[in-house]
Amino acid sequence: MTLETVSTNKSFGGVQGVYRHRSAQTGTEMTFSVFVPGHAPGARLPVLWYLSGLTCTHANVTEKGEFRAACAEHGVIFVAPDTSPRGDDVPDDEAYDFGKGAGFYVDATQEPWAKNFRMRSYIEQELAELVAANFPVDMDRQGITGHSMGGHGALTIGLRNAGRFRSVSAFSPIVSPLSCPWGDKALTGYIGSDRANWREYDACALIEDGARLPDLLVDQGTADGFLEEQLRTDLLAQACEKAGQPATIRMQEGYDHSYYFISTFMAEHVAWHAERLKA
Amino acid sequence: MTLETVSTNKSFGGVQGVYRHRSAQTGTEMTFSVFVPGHAPGARLPVLWYLSGLTCTHANVTEKGEFRAACAEHGVIFVAPDTSPRGDDVPDDEAYDFGKGAGFYVDATQEPWAKNFRMRSYIEQELAELVAANFPVDMDRQGITGHSMGGHGALTIGLRNAGRFRSVSAFSPIVSPLSCPWGDKALTGYIGSDRANWREYDACALIEDGARLPDLLVDQGTADGFLEEQLRTDLLAQACEKAGQPATIRMQEGYDHSYYFISTFMAEHVAWHAERLKA
Repeated sequence: MTLETVSTNKSFGGVQGVYRHRSAQTGTEMTFSVFVPGHAPGARLPVLWYLSGLTCTHANVTEKGEFRAACAEHGVIFVAPDTSPRGDDVPDDEAYDFGKGAGFYVDATQEPWAKNFRMRSYIEQELAELVAANFPVDMDRQGITGHSMGGHGALTIGLRNAGRFRSVSAFSPIVSPLSCPWGDKALTGYIGSDRANWREYDACALIEDGARLPDLLVDQGTADGFLEEQLRTDLLAQACEKAGQPATIRMQEGYDHSYYFISTFMAEHVAWHAERLKA
Repeated sequence: MTLETVSTNKSFGGVQGVYRHRSAQTGTEMTFSVFVPGHAPGARLPVLWYLSGLTCTHANVTEKGEFRAACAEHGVIFVAPDTSPRGDDVPDDEAYDFGKGAGFYVDATQEPWAKNFRMRSYIEQELAELVAANFPVDMDRQGITGHSMGGHGALTIGLRNAGRFRSVSAFSPIVSPLSCPWGDKALTGYIGSDRANWREYDACALIEDGARLPDLLVDQGTADGFLEEQLRTDLLAQACEKAGQPATIRMQEGYDHSYYFISTFMAEHVAWHAERLKA
């Protein structure tokens, strides 16, 4: 697996890089970003994965996420993948919430998506191996977070891989694709209409079915226009309560769905992960 | 002067807004952004002006500048204007360094620019009055900073208006339009070929001609591709040295011209201004 460097910029004493590689999972070129803080020669640093939301690429959080100051302070590597395969040969949908930019972190089983839309295996396997091989990461100290569709990705990947991720948090996550229009459309399209197959892609269902994490941090803005219909933070709170899953779910007064919200609480999330990854 | 609100987003406990108004100076609609930190009712806060560089609008620093955490901490309002008039009726040049996005903070005297390209008077007068009338600012406590062409703007506007601005800093400024290709092209085009008229738009010449500030903070990346030919930090250091103008000019090893550089040192600049504005 060869890695092409698209760009590097010194920032906060470290290096913000953007990289491209040919993915076996998606059959396409994939682009992602990595911030590596300044560190002692030979050191291996904990790594925080950030999964982005609908319509985003690696670039949104890389430019607007305001994570570098905190990652530099705590010595944490920050990896931001794309949200779907890209390219002229990749099937797409004209809507913003399906197809390119909307991979939902699943392995699609339905046509024409099954060939390229393998974002679950891409994140869980291929990109993890690529990052481990090319950056000074300590793969025994991994955390994961994300926003909206990427919050769904972080929660579900985290819950399914509790051994790999020591810390899991999310910003305004879609907590239950089984219970919202975005999820209904995407999972029907990618996975098919048998909703039993959706449970491994639904944070609430995973918790109901017994998946557990040591704890969980979620921030959700009360002025987020997607809260009531799509995000349904209440369902996650109920699932955690019922299952005895420890969780800190914070409703943040007046904040919306944008990076103005995410950046406000980013440093707290990085510190929260760092505390667990360095313990 | 009526102000139209384009957007507001809660961020870092304050409000990041974008506003539009009809400008008498430029004869166009102008857009700018203002961050107002959370504050006690009736309080008036110090204000930091940020002037952007070539090709930028208000949006670049608003999205990538990472100033809000520091402005919230220190209680400083942050204003980011556009870099030129905009619109189909405004003359333009196909190059990135002249015309739209490249107002150079001058009042143009040459045709076809003279009618619209009045960014000096726009910043020094019109926008100042508009901000004073519409936001909880204490106009007795103003600082100014900027990047590249906007660093040039901050230094020259600051030097010409030392009574208005208590604190002046810059990121990778163009320090002498008289001594670089960008300046030569822009000032010839906007002001004409009589270089004596350029001196009020040249930070080094203003200092030579007697303008003084209490002090000055400049950060400049050593890996900035524009340093040697366009920015010429050395000329500012020489002018300050010769004139006895106190200045802290920091050459930052390995940093380039991008917002990855600016954001790294933004919190230090905000703190530096706050210290002087709150003294």
